[in-house]
Amino acid sequence: MTTDRRYTEGLLFTDFYQLTMAQLYFRHGLAERRVQFDFFFRSHPHYGEHSAGYSIFAGLEWLLDWMEETRATRADVEYLRSMTGASGERLFDDDFLNWLADNGTMDGLTIRAVPEGRVVHPNAPLLVVDGPLAMAQLVETPVLNHLNYQTLVATKASRIREATHGALILEFGMRRAHDRGANAGTRAALIGGADFSSNVGVSRLMGVQPKGTHAHSMVQAFLALGGSELDAFRAFADLYPDDCILLVDTIDTLASGVPNAIRVFEELRRRGHVPIGIRLDSGDLAYLAIQAAIQLDAAGFDEVGIVISNNLDELVIWQIVTQIREEAPRYGVNPERLLRRLAHGVGTALITSTGDAALDGVYKLVAIEDGGRLRPAIKLSESRAKTLNPGDKRLWRVYDQRGKATADLIGLAHEKHGTGEPLTLCHPTDEPRRRRLVAEEVREIEALHEDVFVDGHRIGDPPDLEVMRARRRADLDRLDPGVKRLMNPHLYHVSLSQALWDSKHDLVRRLRAEIEPLSR
Amino acid sequence: MTTDRRYTEGLLFTDFYQLTMAQLYFRHGLAERRVQFDFFFRSHPHYGEHSAGYSIFAGLEWLLDWMEETRATRADVEYLRSMTGASGERLFDDDFLNWLADNGTMDGLTIRAVPEGRVVHPNAPLLVVDGPLAMAQLVETPVLNHLNYQTLVATKASRIREATHGALILEFGMRRAHDRGANAGTRAALIGGADFSSNVGVSRLMGVQPKGTHAHSMVQAFLALGGSELDAFRAFADLYPDDCILLVDTIDTLASGVPNAIRVFEELRRRGHVPIGIRLDSGDLAYLAIQAAIQLDAAGFDEVGIVISNNLDELVIWQIVTQIREEAPRYGVNPERLLRRLAHGVGTALITSTGDAALDGVYKLVAIEDGGRLRPAIKLSESRAKTLNPGDKRLWRVYDQRGKATADLIGLAHEKHGTGEPLTLCHPTDEPRRRRLVAEEVREIEALHEDVFVDGHRIGDPPDLEVMRARRRADLDRLDPGVKRLMNPHLYHVSLSQALWDSKHDLVRRLRAEIEPLSR
Repeated sequence: MTTDRRYTEGLLFTDFYQLTMAQLYFRHGLAERRVQFDFFFRSHPHYGEHSAGYSIFAGLEWLLDWMEETRATRADVEYLRSMTGASGERLFDDDFLNWLADNGTMDGLTIRAVPEGRVVHPNAPLLVVDGPLAMAQLVETPVLNHLNYQTLVATKASRIREATHGALILEFGMRRAHDRGANAGTRAALIGGADFSSNVGVSRLMGVQPKGTHAHSMVQAFLALGGSELDAFRAFADLYPDDCILLVDTIDTLASGVPNAIRVFEELRRRGHVPIGIRLDSGDLAYLAIQAAIQLDAAGFDEVGIVISNNLDELVIWQIVTQIREEAPRYGVNPERLLRRLAHGVGTALITSTGDAALDGVYKLVAIEDGGRLRPAIKLSESRAKTLNPGDKRLWRVYDQRGKATADLIGLAHEKHGTGEPLTLCHPTDEPRRRRLVAEEVREIEALHEDVFVDGHRIGDPPDLEVMRARRRADLDRLDPGVKRLMNPHLYHVSLSQALWDSKHDLVRRLRAEIEPLSR
Repeated sequence: MTTDRRYTEGLLFTDFYQLTMAQLYFRHGLAERRVQFDFFFRSHPHYGEHSAGYSIFAGLEWLLDWMEETRATRADVEYLRSMTGASGERLFDDDFLNWLADNGTMDGLTIRAVPEGRVVHPNAPLLVVDGPLAMAQLVETPVLNHLNYQTLVATKASRIREATHGALILEFGMRRAHDRGANAGTRAALIGGADFSSNVGVSRLMGVQPKGTHAHSMVQAFLALGGSELDAFRAFADLYPDDCILLVDTIDTLASGVPNAIRVFEELRRRGHVPIGIRLDSGDLAYLAIQAAIQLDAAGFDEVGIVISNNLDELVIWQIVTQIREEAPRYGVNPERLLRRLAHGVGTALITSTGDAALDGVYKLVAIEDGGRLRPAIKLSESRAKTLNPGDKRLWRVYDQRGKATADLIGLAHEKHGTGEPLTLCHPTDEPRRRRLVAEEVREIEALHEDVFVDGHRIGDPPDLEVMRARRRADLDRLDPGVKRLMNPHLYHVSLSQALWDSKHDLVRRLRAEIEPLSR
């Protein structure tokens, strides 16, 4: 990126009100007051006609990178010094700016969070920032920016993975991604379910091989110079004899592309090479995959892969899988074999999360120190569902006797939950609804928060991609199949402990009593 | 961003196949063969229940920045040298890598394009890259990445502007944006219709004042420490007496927030300051705006603004405007006055272009040099609508006698079009459809392409934000109101010249004749 644009990614990568509020806190002696903010989202992505039943948490490690590297620079401070308000007077005074120059770092912040790659659910605090009010407030925007998008894309990738039944997924959405968001999106796709990506830089960063085929333009160039599709295919196969995937729809898929690909594959075979595959990028992909398989099989290329692409998402893939299962047998093609040789090239729908392009994650003040202890903070709202869960909290996952996750439990920091005793799960908004589990019903209670950042520094090294993928796979294995369903999934329970429920409703009652006189 | 992540934004910010194709072209002596690629999109954003009738072109200048700064670095080349294929052998050989190290620059590329901020339409070439094949191909991904997203957001911003009827628009979507795409999105929003943004870094870059109010957390902090909403408002007003906008829905908008804001505004007024506004962020915004206006007016604050926010997009704003026009008179409130004092805080819907989060722009090879001249290149496709317009082309806009744009005309480079002669406009796909304009019907024919980049360098300085905004306003003034309609807009004509039509269909016929034997 342009050098003089770098400062747009530092401390000024934030909403303006974070800075005006920081000065206010400074003026009132609250800038360094200890607080806690929770990051959570209110609902899984909802794609219009279908909805996710779980999400995959992602973006954390890039957030921690940003936090380790960012502090108020001289240029940041000078810019704020130059700002004037409506009256023409300066908006930020020297006292505050001197404080910011010295204290505008993440050194005072501590973060606990759910590890990246794990299955997560609405309303559960996935990340808790603990530290001085001004800086904890200032990082709101970067926290949300990093976590909302990557969680959104990792979730979409996981859904696409469910739809493909284990067939390979290639991410290649950067051309339709939101500018440099392409890089975060590629990373999240790789965590959430894509096997490979076409994004060279991020593949390098994540330690996976970038993948690709060739474009229509390569065939076009040969045609325009008096050559043929066959010439183009031969040129590609000569150069990449052991990595040869040919795009067969520039002219006519079944009449030209596939027969030409087979001729080239035969030449490769004679020279001792194993062709990798063909790619179908337009038309009725299920029908064309079946017909291409027939031609390939007849030529003895039944191991050659078939990459399909063109506006694929989880529902389109589901349709293609269904169509292949129904249609392939009529042509004498084994549908399960065909499905296993497919690879899915997924672009726009994954990297922009088609149908729901934003996760609704929020960052809310839940506690503030007063008289030596953390006091819970709350925001009343027009709806019970949006009333915060206040206070210093922890998050647990409860597994039933089958080893399946049966609920996430939000409780207060001082609570201890272990197996061998009964457990009460309170519905988050509906007072009379309680679910009681006897000791025998609970196999395991897992604490989900880990300390990830202390006093300005990440704890330990960032996890490898494979570690994050393994977390995802393990969590998905322990999730009820109904929750993973692509449409109308089962609702997974996120519950409050009795202690949190009582504390929350005490606070709501007290605040309502205080404002009562105002309403009259 | 993390230092070791910088290379993900250089030459490796691309799809892998660009590199494998580049090596193929190099091997065949075509790497430096002159070619042309067109950037165009196939349809305006379609948001599900509604669709854009025009788009606003954006992203060009950031693309040119990227091109001026990017070249193959030593690290890029060494990474490619380390890559191996399925056989374990290197994918890129030394000859190619040496060529890339020396020639992996934009120095040979020339670009003509429609200027940023202008109204644009489908299928028209908005940007043409001319230069050596390998590098012109390599920039495909960055071209698409830069132009697709910013054009998408600028278009959404312009629609939101249409809906607000000139009331202020504040962009604050970075928390839901796609990672660093937030910055490009903010820029595009400012070009396309937003007056201000909360994004501090990009506001600084674009030379506009960042804007904001305060968060609920500020009120919550005062409440948790035993203070009140009124205390929080007073603190804010004391610090920013001439820039005071108060968020009034933390507790109860009409019973607590607005009355408290009025008390604070009265205190400000006594001290000689002019309060700026209140912000409504939840509930029935039209109803609350009317009720808040009644309270504000009764206290003599009829000039104080009302910022509304919470999932606004063009349709929600349209509904709110309609509701205010219908409801306000029943409460004795002048609706037009109320609408003028509104400001619209727009977040997620703008920066992620809710309903259609990707523009379908493509980058296609249209010409390649052979025997000293550019030969048109084409890609046949399953549909006539997707068959390319081949060759070295230009783009004109035709204005009728009212001065309104009546069609965009795509023609060949050698054509001249001027007023004073009749004009034939060919339907792009439907052969018999011709529209003929007599000389008197045409007031002006404007060439839309400008040379913007020659031999690796931008021509002139990047335009100021106000220049791009002025282009947008001028083009919108010259657009038929029916084309600007939010739902079911009129279809604007994008036509081919007779010469282009003839050339295209010659080429299609020739190519079909060549492949005919294959189909039998």
